[in-house]
Amino acid sequence: MTERTIPYKTYLTEEEMPKQWYNVRADMKNKPAPLADPATGNPLPAEALEPVFCKELIAQELDNDTRYFDIPKEVLDFYKMYRPSPLIRAYYLEKLLDTPAHIYYKYEGGNTSGSHKLNSAIAQAYYAKKQGLKGVTTETGAGQWGTALSMACSYFGLDCDVYMVKVSYEQKPFRREVMNTYGAAVTPSPSMKTNVGKAILEEHPGTTGSLGCAISEAVEVAVSSEGYRYVLGSVLNQVLLHQSIIGLEAKAALDKLGEKADIIIGCAGGGSNLGGLITPFAAEKLREENDYQIIAVEPASCPSLTRGKFAYDFCDTGKVCPLAKMYTLGSGFIPSPNHAGGLRYHGMSPVVSQLYHDGIIEATSVEQTAVFDAAVKFARVEGILPAPESSHAIKVAIDEALKCKETGEEKVILFGLTGTGYFDMYAYEAFNNGTMTDYIPTDEDLEIGFASLPKFE
Amino acid sequence: MTERTIPYKTYLTEEEMPKQWYNVRADMKNKPAPLADPATGNPLPAEALEPVFCKELIAQELDNDTRYFDIPKEVLDFYKMYRPSPLIRAYYLEKLLDTPAHIYYKYEGGNTSGSHKLNSAIAQAYYAKKQGLKGVTTETGAGQWGTALSMACSYFGLDCDVYMVKVSYEQKPFRREVMNTYGAAVTPSPSMKTNVGKAILEEHPGTTGSLGCAISEAVEVAVSSEGYRYVLGSVLNQVLLHQSIIGLEAKAALDKLGEKADIIIGCAGGGSNLGGLITPFAAEKLREENDYQIIAVEPASCPSLTRGKFAYDFCDTGKVCPLAKMYTLGSGFIPSPNHAGGLRYHGMSPVVSQLYHDGIIEATSVEQTAVFDAAVKFARVEGILPAPESSHAIKVAIDEALKCKETGEEKVILFGLTGTGYFDMYAYEAFNNGTMTDYIPTDEDLEIGFASLPKFE
Repeated sequence: MTERTIPYKTYLTEEEMPKQWYNVRADMKNKPAPLADPATGNPLPAEALEPVFCKELIAQELDNDTRYFDIPKEVLDFYKMYRPSPLIRAYYLEKLLDTPAHIYYKYEGGNTSGSHKLNSAIAQAYYAKKQGLKGVTTETGAGQWGTALSMACSYFGLDCDVYMVKVSYEQKPFRREVMNTYGAAVTPSPSMKTNVGKAILEEHPGTTGSLGCAISEAVEVAVSSEGYRYVLGSVLNQVLLHQSIIGLEAKAALDKLGEKADIIIGCAGGGSNLGGLITPFAAEKLREENDYQIIAVEPASCPSLTRGKFAYDFCDTGKVCPLAKMYTLGSGFIPSPNHAGGLRYHGMSPVVSQLYHDGIIEATSVEQTAVFDAAVKFARVEGILPAPESSHAIKVAIDEALKCKETGEEKVILFGLTGTGYFDMYAYEAFNNGTMTDYIPTDEDLEIGFASLPKFE
Repeated sequence: MTERTIPYKTYLTEEEMPKQWYNVRADMKNKPAPLADPATGNPLPAEALEPVFCKELIAQELDNDTRYFDIPKEVLDFYKMYRPSPLIRAYYLEKLLDTPAHIYYKYEGGNTSGSHKLNSAIAQAYYAKKQGLKGVTTETGAGQWGTALSMACSYFGLDCDVYMVKVSYEQKPFRREVMNTYGAAVTPSPSMKTNVGKAILEEHPGTTGSLGCAISEAVEVAVSSEGYRYVLGSVLNQVLLHQSIIGLEAKAALDKLGEKADIIIGCAGGGSNLGGLITPFAAEKLREENDYQIIAVEPASCPSLTRGKFAYDFCDTGKVCPLAKMYTLGSGFIPSPNHAGGLRYHGMSPVVSQLYHDGIIEATSVEQTAVFDAAVKFARVEGILPAPESSHAIKVAIDEALKCKETGEEKVILFGLTGTGYFDMYAYEAFNNGTMTDYIPTDEDLEIGFASLPKFE
């Protein structure tokens, strides 16, 4: 048999790009549980969500049956600006590891937002514009989502009101400035602009904020302002629907190359990247057409899948958002200052949670020094300096490739390289100078989080 | 005639990628003047350059006759990691400007070094490795070149000793940290490691350094260390040779689309990007096969082509480097603190200088607030946040497209988007908050620079 010649990078043509998003819920026997009322725990009808979310996004959120959604032409046009993202054969990493495995990664960091978040940001901005809204509000932690949304809002001429976790606002002035450049208003959270923010500042005057608090502020502003809605960059079903573009492109590119993935690996914080990447593979597994090993990788410091509970929980600390049933550490869980800001959320997408609960995907957790060790190895041979979040997937891809070296198996490994680390150089500095530490929460730490779970179930 | 459908982004396949660099000097009737001895002004033979530069690079530097050089397989392999770069049709910019012009840009910022500099860095590192050297030394200002070289040296296992202008070292810790991540040793310049550095620090204790001084330090270390040579990221003929990959790819992609460029625009500091981009177009113009309008854009604050003298000059402030005949403001010229760090060099590539002198290319200068205005416009519609350097080309591309709007001409405009501005957010911040100013040197300022030109000519 002659060796097939596979290029380093594979791009789909514009014609080959997916024209529809795939809704994995249509193929799930056990559907994710519906969003529920934070006051009563009862499922929320569409009308109850309308003060918070855009109408068409609610329809997407609640639709467990429609398998494919047409991507609107306006969104397809924007996708052409930075998509298709390349599927890259990691020849140099394979060589470094001396592995028979074929390693591929889907690289989503080649746009100015620096991550995959733009895939859903542009969709959400489009539906907000279509509804005739003035603008949207959101929160951002490390800043990838806020940057993506500011780009999307700038494109459609929408106001973009971002509540940025105060510690990131102060430590990541560059991300904040990218958002400003795209015309967004960025407020450090907690702020005095909201009742939630005022209450938190009164109780904890020196607080540097949290994602859960920033969400509460953004929601409060959305529901109390004429012509505004709240948008979220992860966790929700609608986000995973939009992010399916990652997996659909990756699968189409692999098919074009005549390769079949054996293992699919993604980092998992709220689940947006993982849920998007694995979608078409999970579909075939759910339909029992093909088998795949699908691995969610989370930080050991914030282990919602591997050590959390599968329960209805608050999505925010202010408890103004709907409840979601998910693997969670509890909204009261305090994550350690891990450098992968995008993976510090206490919960996990209900879809990803359900797929994990049903054994369609597995999960593992890794420590950050091992993650950065993998990141630097990868950067040096593959030429891309990865985001700390993405590097969780790199670490496990390397582990799996080394297993192949031992067994001699020529497995095809696909992982998601969600973004670049250009705005995370303080983290690299800590690793490079040896001051980075690991942190694994104790069982007592977890109990504090679990004690904050809602009581009506 | 039916409208041709041109995609947003055009990528060459691996097979279509250029396998040779093009040496424009072979087609120049008036060859660029040879490098000369800084002590006597006499042309330097190859042997005299060998303590400073790698042997094969000297051969490339001095060869005015060989039209094409094979790109070594090892360099081609590395190119596959991040090349071909896309040729992008700026549909959104065209729409914003409402222009009949077809605007294309060749985007070189999609790699971790963030600019086109990697094209020559990997070639220079390869020849250093082939020569059996231990490592190379260099200087870097804003940090793009140093980052590129650190990536290239990491790939070939070479030591990389970077002298970084002190003000950038302090103000751009992220770039420094990227270099560290790739294993480079980064020293703020002037330093106490060299005689040149010590002398400058003694004379000007509080100095924040300059590119000319950092060059002198890097050269001193190279010539006084066993197994080391000095490498430079711009100005030299060899660099333009390697950078021809930009223009060759751009031209091949345009040919594939059936488009013929009318105007080619590049920013010009030392001339590496401009010289690389225009190469195959200038070739046809030199051979009188085709006509093109080729425009070099420089900052009004450092106008070497538009206000400089065409003369032999020092390349560094320590006056240890060979002299080059070029358009120059004099090594004693003090540029204002313009935010486009890559365009603050006092001289200009001898090849670019000669082409300009012979009327093959024209030049214009622009002020930085107008440049950032163009940059923000571009970022908002095209989705890429451009480097301040690259934005000089954007500004003039917009001007030319607006001329087409007036005349109704459907000209094809190609410009070089050399890099991203992710590490330049302080500059964007200054623009966004209105504190950015313009600066045009007075004739008296220029006289100070001209007074520093060498006297033997």
